[in-house]
Amino acid sequence: MREHVDASNERLRAWHEADLEHTSAQLVRHGIDAGEVIDVVARFSVAAPSWALGTGGTRFGRFPGGGEPRTTEEKIDDIAALNALTGANRSVSLHIPWDDPSDPTALRAFAAERQIAFDCMNSNTFQDQPGADVSYKFGSLAHTDPGMRKAAIEHNRYVIEVGRALGSRGLVVWLADGTNHPGQASLRGQYERVLEGLQDIYASMPQDWTLYTEHKPYEPAFYSSVVADWGTSLMLAHAIGERAACIVDLGHHLPNTNVEQVVSRLLMAGRLGGFHFNDSVYGDDDLTTGSVTPYRLFLIFCELLEPGTLPDVAYMIDQSHNLKDPIEDLIGATDNIQMALAQALCVDRDALQDAQERNDPAGAEAVLQRAFRTDVRPLVAEARRRNGAAIDPLDTFRASGYRAAKIAERGEDATATGL
Amino acid sequence: MREHVDASNERLRAWHEADLEHTSAQLVRHGIDAGEVIDVVARFSVAAPSWALGTGGTRFGRFPGGGEPRTTEEKIDDIAALNALTGANRSVSLHIPWDDPSDPTALRAFAAERQIAFDCMNSNTFQDQPGADVSYKFGSLAHTDPGMRKAAIEHNRYVIEVGRALGSRGLVVWLADGTNHPGQASLRGQYERVLEGLQDIYASMPQDWTLYTEHKPYEPAFYSSVVADWGTSLMLAHAIGERAACIVDLGHHLPNTNVEQVVSRLLMAGRLGGFHFNDSVYGDDDLTTGSVTPYRLFLIFCELLEPGTLPDVAYMIDQSHNLKDPIEDLIGATDNIQMALAQALCVDRDALQDAQERNDPAGAEAVLQRAFRTDVRPLVAEARRRNGAAIDPLDTFRASGYRAAKIAERGEDATATGL
Amino acid sequence: MREHVDASNERLRAWHEADLEHTSAQLVRHGIDAGEVIDVVARFSVAAPSWALGTGGTRFGRFPGGGEPRTTEEKIDDIAALNALTGANRSVSLHIPWDDPSDPTALRAFAAERQIAFDCMNSNTFQDQPGADVSYKFGSLAHTDPGMRKAAIEHNRYVIEVGRALGSRGLVVWLADGTNHPGQASLRGQYERVLEGLQDIYASMPQDWTLYTEHKPYEPAFYSSVVADWGTSLMLAHAIGERAACIVDLGHHLPNTNVEQVVSRLLMAGRLGGFHFNDSVYGDDDLTTGSVTPYRLFLIFCELLEPGTLPDVAYMIDQSHNLKDPIEDLIGATDNIQMALAQALCVDRDALQDAQERNDPAGAEAVLQRAFRTDVRPLVAEARRRNGAAIDPLDTFRASGYRAAKIAERGEDATATGL
Amino acid sequence: MREHVDASNERLRAWHEADLEHTSAQLVRHGIDAGEVIDVVARFSVAAPSWALGTGGTRFGRFPGGGEPRTTEEKIDDIAALNALTGANRSVSLHIPWDDPSDPTALRAFAAERQIAFDCMNSNTFQDQPGADVSYKFGSLAHTDPGMRKAAIEHNRYVIEVGRALGSRGLVVWLADGTNHPGQASLRGQYERVLEGLQDIYASMPQDWTLYTEHKPYEPAFYSSVVADWGTSLMLAHAIGERAACIVDLGHHLPNTNVEQVVSRLLMAGRLGGFHFNDSVYGDDDLTTGSVTPYRLFLIFCELLEPGTLPDVAYMIDQSHNLKDPIEDLIGATDNIQMALAQALCVDRDALQDAQERNDPAGAEAVLQRAFRTDVRPLVAEARRRNGAAIDPLDTFRASGYRAAKIAERGEDATATGL
Repeated sequence: MREHVDASNERLRAWHEADLEHTSAQLVRHGIDAGEVIDVVARFSVAAPSWALGTGGTRFGRFPGGGEPRTTEEKIDDIAALNALTGANRSVSLHIPWDDPSDPTALRAFAAERQIAFDCMNSNTFQDQPGADVSYKFGSLAHTDPGMRKAAIEHNRYVIEVGRALGSRGLVVWLADGTNHPGQASLRGQYERVLEGLQDIYASMPQDWTLYTEHKPYEPAFYSSVVADWGTSLMLAHAIGERAACIVDLGHHLPNTNVEQVVSRLLMAGRLGGFHFNDSVYGDDDLTTGSVTPYRLFLIFCELLEPGTLPDVAYMIDQSHNLKDPIEDLIGATDNIQMALAQALCVDRDALQDAQERNDPAGAEAVLQRAFRTDVRPLVAEARRRNGAAIDPLDTFRASGYRAAKIAERGEDATATGL
Repeated sequence: MREHVDASNERLRAWHEADLEHTSAQLVRHGIDAGEVIDVVARFSVAAPSWALGTGGTRFGRFPGGGEPRTTEEKIDDIAALNALTGANRSVSLHIPWDDPSDPTALRAFAAERQIAFDCMNSNTFQDQPGADVSYKFGSLAHTDPGMRKAAIEHNRYVIEVGRALGSRGLVVWLADGTNHPGQASLRGQYERVLEGLQDIYASMPQDWTLYTEHKPYEPAFYSSVVADWGTSLMLAHAIGERAACIVDLGHHLPNTNVEQVVSRLLMAGRLGGFHFNDSVYGDDDLTTGSVTPYRLFLIFCELLEPGTLPDVAYMIDQSHNLKDPIEDLIGATDNIQMALAQALCVDRDALQDAQERNDPAGAEAVLQRAFRTDVRPLVAEARRRNGAAIDPLDTFRASGYRAAKIAERGEDATATGL
Repeated sequence: MREHVDASNERLRAWHEADLEHTSAQLVRHGIDAGEVIDVVARFSVAAPSWALGTGGTRFGRFPGGGEPRTTEEKIDDIAALNALTGANRSVSLHIPWDDPSDPTALRAFAAERQIAFDCMNSNTFQDQPGADVSYKFGSLAHTDPGMRKAAIEHNRYVIEVGRALGSRGLVVWLADGTNHPGQASLRGQYERVLEGLQDIYASMPQDWTLYTEHKPYEPAFYSSVVADWGTSLMLAHAIGERAACIVDLGHHLPNTNVEQVVSRLLMAGRLGGFHFNDSVYGDDDLTTGSVTPYRLFLIFCELLEPGTLPDVAYMIDQSHNLKDPIEDLIGATDNIQMALAQALCVDRDALQDAQERNDPAGAEAVLQRAFRTDVRPLVAEARRRNGAAIDPLDTFRASGYRAAKIAERGEDATATGL
Repeated sequence: MREHVDASNERLRAWHEADLEHTSAQLVRHGIDAGEVIDVVARFSVAAPSWALGTGGTRFGRFPGGGEPRTTEEKIDDIAALNALTGANRSVSLHIPWDDPSDPTALRAFAAERQIAFDCMNSNTFQDQPGADVSYKFGSLAHTDPGMRKAAIEHNRYVIEVGRALGSRGLVVWLADGTNHPGQASLRGQYERVLEGLQDIYASMPQDWTLYTEHKPYEPAFYSSVVADWGTSLMLAHAIGERAACIVDLGHHLPNTNVEQVVSRLLMAGRLGGFHFNDSVYGDDDLTTGSVTPYRLFLIFCELLEPGTLPDVAYMIDQSHNLKDPIEDLIGATDNIQMALAQALCVDRDALQDAQERNDPAGAEAVLQRAFRTDVRPLVAEARRRNGAAIDPLDTFRASGYRAAKIAERGEDATATGL
């Protein structure tokens, strides 16, 4: 990929330099140092999810595009290619059992050679495995049957063990537990059982790990979900322990939720664990982050930056690539995230606070919009360039012929594990 | 099943008679004739969907329960059993290619023996078939490629052909066509191509058939859907021809939609084609009809009855039985639908209109609530009993041992086609 | 009112007795004792809001109906009349400054004569008062100006003082504080200031009082609200102290919220403060409780009863009577609340738990529906009758000529304070 | 205002020219001619609503800021000031009876002197007027009482008459008619009466006028609204006549509606009447257009431009300025609208269509995002400058001291008519 990046960057160099110079000059007018923005963007990385290197689908169908990675190693190859283009995807989130390495130590070495680290581990207690003698049909940690709960806890312990060998530092627990019908389960009983299970899992975690709970209002449960909202997620985190924190998936909210305020609340409570980035119109649509509501993504980064510096939480992408090429979709998401971060860094914080103190909503808005409307593309491109990555990653990817090569290598019918 | 029905009814007879007598006496106080209510309920039938005899699922998983029908014939067996219990599921909706009879004439005879008729046919252009040389990944009737559109039209023609042989009288076209990303397609172009395709299909239909368009705001398309709302569905129906009408699926609406008014509008426009019954909290959740919002179901039947008699439209169930036994789920839905119909028939129409004329909202509401709170269970049970069906269909089904017998016969791993 | 109640009850006696006997006999079949249900319903009381005795409105208009109470005393007269009809509205919630008694001790005696007690007090920091030198335009407790915050705290202290004299035991703080525009205020700073203010107010409260925070996602703030969700309300309650609890207003939730689970969570956390009862389709619509989603109201009472007995929290109505006569609207709400309570008491708890343990959703649902479909009207009517109130309160109210008398007495243009 | 504009523009000239040169050079790379974009933006105008020159409010309160226009003449003065700053608000929408000119001819001359024309007229049948002997409490055109309907029709005729004298060419009818309670009215009967009333009004309209129906799902009616959705609005337009068209208010949609597709549908049906521009998160929040969802505003303009040129429909702002200075709010809205138009004009249409034909969603998205992320501020500023208006209208307005002068002239307590 490197030679493609270099060739493409060389082609775009003159335009890029002109653009960069102009944006930098514009920012100086309002006291923003373009170099500092570039520095922060260049240091930023967001984990790619192993399950999103293949084509995703819905209950109505799945339309694979060919050349999907057949093994965890091939997924890591794809992420290394992605990272060569973006310079900002330096780690991978694994999902067990979709990725169940027979030799974690070897896998770790394989990834390290490609400069890919292991971000949070993800367990799966929402699907039954062929031949398993447990079923999550009626729940996992919330199940009324202690045997089922025990199996779910054991699975999480196993995921931690694998994660330790890989050098991961956290476990994300997303539960499908809930009900489809009023009365199906005691809402209170379900919560109590989930809490007990999470406490057990927490007790098995290494001291330097974090346990992340992730809320979601519905799907696959359609009447109630145990961890339906950030309030429940926070209650759980408080009851579990200090190293428990809450993941915000951008699509896991009821209609009209002010997600940036949810982020602010969790950050203020010291329990913001991190993000599953994606975008959505209707529900957990898992679209490309920032592709439909880019202003919201910007506002989320404004909240993250309010305390002064970007918090050290888990930044992870979680998308379902139903139509786009998975790597192209991840390129787009990473670019949009970097863009939103850069825009948020361009906010004149003093002017904003001043307008807020004076109760001047039009003035405060003008400060935000000035940052949002600034053409930060050259800043992000420059951050990528300095990281050895591509000024225009999508174009470079297409020009590289990567997918065609993978189709040739892996086949038209190669299928990645995942949804 | 018959002997189980009789035994169960005999057991419940005394209570049933006491209940029936009491409700009848109560209704007389407000001028409602229980006998007439029972008559209308007894005549009512709602089609069972062939795809809902097996366990449904979500993109996160599917948990089959065993004993599912392996063939269309076995599906019809299940519906015959269902109908023996409810007396109100006298037809089946088939879905091609999930049910693709090699010999439609024989299938028709098979069903007729079991007193099951064929309601509307359903085509499927939202899933790719193994080995097919067309793909619906980027649309069917809305596809930019004329070849794909042609294939989708041909498929619909084939479904009509099969339906003719079965004695069906209508085709339901639900399209997944839409986009996941702003800009992916021309919204206008997609509509125009869909209209053209539907006009082609309509031209191939027998003169006594109806073409039903079914709207849905999202899923599987997550940015835009071509037939997203009843407005679009009605535009299409008007542009297609007189025998085009609109299906209302109760879960295919944006949050907070007043569905009963949508029903009223389409009925008034002469284009209400019928229903896909289910219930939902969040989206197309496909829960048991009436299990979460029973008052809404009652209000829908109030709208249907406003012109005086129940309109002769297509009444069909469309649920996804993820957790309940499919037959139990259909029993519950049918019961809830009959209940809502009976309640709506108990509305004192004169008193309601009088309150409406006088702008007396509290009075009008009292009239509706009196009907809704009336214990109509004995009326519905009596309608079933007169149809030779069960006073308590769920209990009777459980006592019959039907599922256990089917597991023995069809196996633990039998899987029905469907979602 | 008493003679109208007696006359009406006498007229309905025979029917009532027949209905009561039948429902009681039905309940025995499933081991439910009608007498116990009646007892609990008869003991239950829900406070009427002083601000809801007049006609409510929207920003688009208000259409008063005549005969509205002009003073707090007249409001209490209306509530006494209401309570004579329902036997279940034995207290009033006051709202300061809409009700600002010059002599609280005298007002308390006035109410006591009419057997009306004082439930929670409500403060108002969302409207400016004529001639006031503070303005809540940009917030109250969340305001950036310490002077404004101080004024808001002082107002709450004053409300507590009045409440003490009246015998109230709690203060409900609903805040309109929020923003209309991204960037207008620091979301974090607003929360911190609100918490500080509530802590101050809490410190001023008598030891036997409770401080209630009430969340609401939007309106009048249209971009963010400080106490937007139950998560924030619970965070505040935890940070304030043991006698801080959370009010659930049934209309203060985002679309598709599972409100009964929110109730369950707060109850489980020991922080459920009570209710503002109303119903809604779209937002804070303030419709008659139970008039649109009666099954949801039933499910909420099922959650309340899960621990075994109805919790001793603040039950209050909060509706905006835009079209119905205010007293008729309160009669309807109280009736619907009693009905939902009675239905929830008819749930066969053992059968429900048994179905839950067995993961039998259809069975659990059947248990709930059996209770919901039971005609509990005679049980509620009997509870009212035993409390000396009306079997049919709406009819009795209409027959009494109360409103006409009040129009004659108070005038066509009398206007109650409130929204 | 002119001298303030000139002074401010002079101050910003150097920066503006540098920015303009850079953006123009960037656009050339993708074949877009900046000059053509500027031309279209410079020709564009959006009407200011007369009711939005004063402070708006909610049912919870209103916080006037001082210096509001006391008469329609003063409103026109404010719009003239606004237009001097933006060059893009060359007309006003009047609302009767909030603006009821005693001498329309004189008012027209007054406005003409200030170069302000009269856009659509707005009637009001949702508020009762003091001393009126009709009440819209239970509806206007949908009322069951023929006398009320007649009064509503007469009011609309009067508005047309005034509008003719002013040189207007259209009437916008927004109806609050609906119900708050199931059963309150016949949904069908209400529709039929509304249609009949609109047909009457249409018959009274001059031949060169357009009748605009405007849908809204809820508020002030909270159970059902007669013209709840675009489907109903289109049904009405079709039934009324050729010169009937549908207004899209950006806040009048259910949660998650794809508004740009609604625009596309109505445009395609030949019935897009125009817009009421605003922005919203929750409902009819009436926030500054483009202040929360700028990408959506861009996508709407992309739809408008799809047929090649901007359609000649009614472009009107409709906001409620609760917190911002009304003129500042209108400046912001106008700027955001111009910005979205400019961005949409920067879309490389050929590249977009090409990607659409190839089913290349990532490619199509890249084309849209390239346009959206282009810094079009200098193009819009240049369009304003050529129209004699301000490069930076907000700053210029603030520097001009306009509001302070108006407070001095009109008083602190001046109150404009409106909501």
